[in-house]
Amino acid sequence: ADEAAMQAARERQAQLTKPPGALGDLEALSVRLAGVFGTDRPDPQGVAVIVAAGDHGIAAEGVSAFPPEVTGAMVANFLADTPAGPGGAAVNALARSVGAQVYVMDAGVAAGLPEHPRLVRAAVRPGTRNLRREAAMTHAEAEALILAGAALARQAIEDGADLLIPGEMGIGNTTPAAALTARLLRLDAAEVTGRGTGVDGAALAHKVAVIREALGRSDVTDPLDVLAEFGGFEIAAMLGVMLQAAASRRAVILDGFVEGSAALVGVALVPALADYLFPAGECAERGHAAQLAHLGLRPMFRLGLRLGEGTGGVLAAPLLRGAAATLREMRTFAEAGVPTA
Amino acid sequence: ADEAAMQAARERQAQLTKPPGALGDLEALSVRLAGVFGTDRPDPQGVAVIVAAGDHGIAAEGVSAFPPEVTGAMVANFLADTPAGPGGAAVNALARSVGAQVYVMDAGVAAGLPEHPRLVRAAVRPGTRNLRREAAMTHAEAEALILAGAALARQAIEDGADLLIPGEMGIGNTTPAAALTARLLRLDAAEVTGRGTGVDGAALAHKVAVIREALGRSDVTDPLDVLAEFGGFEIAAMLGVMLQAAASRRAVILDGFVEGSAALVGVALVPALADYLFPAGECAERGHAAQLAHLGLRPMFRLGLRLGEGTGGVLAAPLLRGAAATLREMRTFAEAGVPTA
Repeated sequence: ADEAAMQAARERQAQLTKPPGALGDLEALSVRLAGVFGTDRPDPQGVAVIVAAGDHGIAAEGVSAFPPEVTGAMVANFLADTPAGPGGAAVNALARSVGAQVYVMDAGVAAGLPEHPRLVRAAVRPGTRNLRREAAMTHAEAEALILAGAALARQAIEDGADLLIPGEMGIGNTTPAAALTARLLRLDAAEVTGRGTGVDGAALAHKVAVIREALGRSDVTDPLDVLAEFGGFEIAAMLGVMLQAAASRRAVILDGFVEGSAALVGVALVPALADYLFPAGECAERGHAAQLAHLGLRPMFRLGLRLGEGTGGVLAAPLLRGAAATLREMRTFAEAGVPTA
Repeated sequence: ADEAAMQAARERQAQLTKPPGALGDLEALSVRLAGVFGTDRPDPQGVAVIVAAGDHGIAAEGVSAFPPEVTGAMVANFLADTPAGPGGAAVNALARSVGAQVYVMDAGVAAGLPEHPRLVRAAVRPGTRNLRREAAMTHAEAEALILAGAALARQAIEDGADLLIPGEMGIGNTTPAAALTARLLRLDAAEVTGRGTGVDGAALAHKVAVIREALGRSDVTDPLDVLAEFGGFEIAAMLGVMLQAAASRRAVILDGFVEGSAALVGVALVPALADYLFPAGECAERGHAAQLAHLGLRPMFRLGLRLGEGTGGVLAAPLLRGAAATLREMRTFAEAGVPTA
């Protein structure tokens, strides 16, 4: 991030017509945005949510409350024509309400998907291998999806995106997300494994056991090794989105737990990536708090979302635009002729 | 609120393409919006923030970190021409960023204000009396401002507002807000008195002592008596905005502690008003949590705002529009042909 712009932003913040600190976290957010965009008057406008969908071999192990066919059905839902506009899922409705563009990627969905002009095809395999038994992806497969995510991020940026939101859909994907989080943060599986779409009791204990078994299979610690062993195609794609956004000096809004697992791989590869990440909400999924603590970042809201798709990120976009607007457009005490304390 | 619409909304929520509960608090918010707007497809669009400004006799007692001249200077700031558009204060910048309309009311500012076409003049007195010594307002004065607030809310609704945000500016006004809160919730002044724009240590203890002395002066408990004794002109105006919004079946976004004190008077008068109130953020001001607990409502974010002006309310507007969008525009499992758990 641009330290000079951040310093200029801090100095400007201190002069704006409000008591010092009265805008709370918006002030620090505005300074971080100054660092990302390299100016003390950041003006992020376009918002893009890139929803990557992938299936998971691990879904065969009964780790999810939903059947794997839901992944492909939801991709169709993301693309469907509806009376309100394109897409009938939560992320579509929220994106329309804030004026965000939705990009949909087949990162490795098992079901055959119908041709659709807005579906970006990047699958190299119809779902990962079962990570309980073997590596989920080869290095080449993981890298292909990282590059596909980066390419779609470049497209979104060309289309005008300043705020990029990696989102995901993949039945079973809180399992690889928990495995990545456990390995990268060196925590036990139980500390980072949550209910996902709704497993509980014995099913949750089974999910923890499956993740422990997977982690016991391989002691890799190199970030790309960890991603290939325990990750997923949509997680690799989201990592690519994040790395490209940072390289292009755009901000990344970080939605939930699965997105967070991609971010952990990202900061292990490139620590400076953290400067470009803005967590949206405190996700209800167990393990999310540990991710944010590791990233040293504070979420903007706590609405108890645990849907994924990038939904929380879309909701947070107006908050970031608002933070930037205060820094950019407010007058100083001197400009306004307002007496100070 | 419309119970039938809320029930239809609950049934619809349970069918939408997401795991049950995965949209967290957005789901309950969407159901409440259905109740306000009388439809299970609520579509709140226009956002209006009505900033009422007033001065306070109590400011002479050293309860604020800022001099009283700031009230009038900030009104000028709300109305100023700036390169970014009308108004150079935080509320103006945030309103532009979410497309909200700003209305500015002189509810009783001490300083002479220049003529301005966008300034609504409703003052009946240049600031309240010193509530430490005597009633802040007469009943007639308080009622005049309630009616003025209601009239401006009607204007905003005519202009297209579905979401109304009462906001305020008034040096010293966390003191009347704390006095109102203490009396209406039957709490000691120390439990509801905070730092306002920045008083601390001995100054904060003095503020508490002043409020205790004021409360000791009169044992009124009737809501309008309490408002007149311990309130302020901008608080009365915000109460009028809230009552009119509810009567017109529009939603009120509740910003911070001073707004909360007006809401407490409102629900004491008309308990059903609470159905129309949507608290924006957890305000950093002490006493706000007690207000929300009494109202039985949960805030949407915690950004540590303590500015007033309606700033938090403006930031929350896109969250409410998003909640409504999910209920209105998402497809059901049946419509989308997505398998369920």
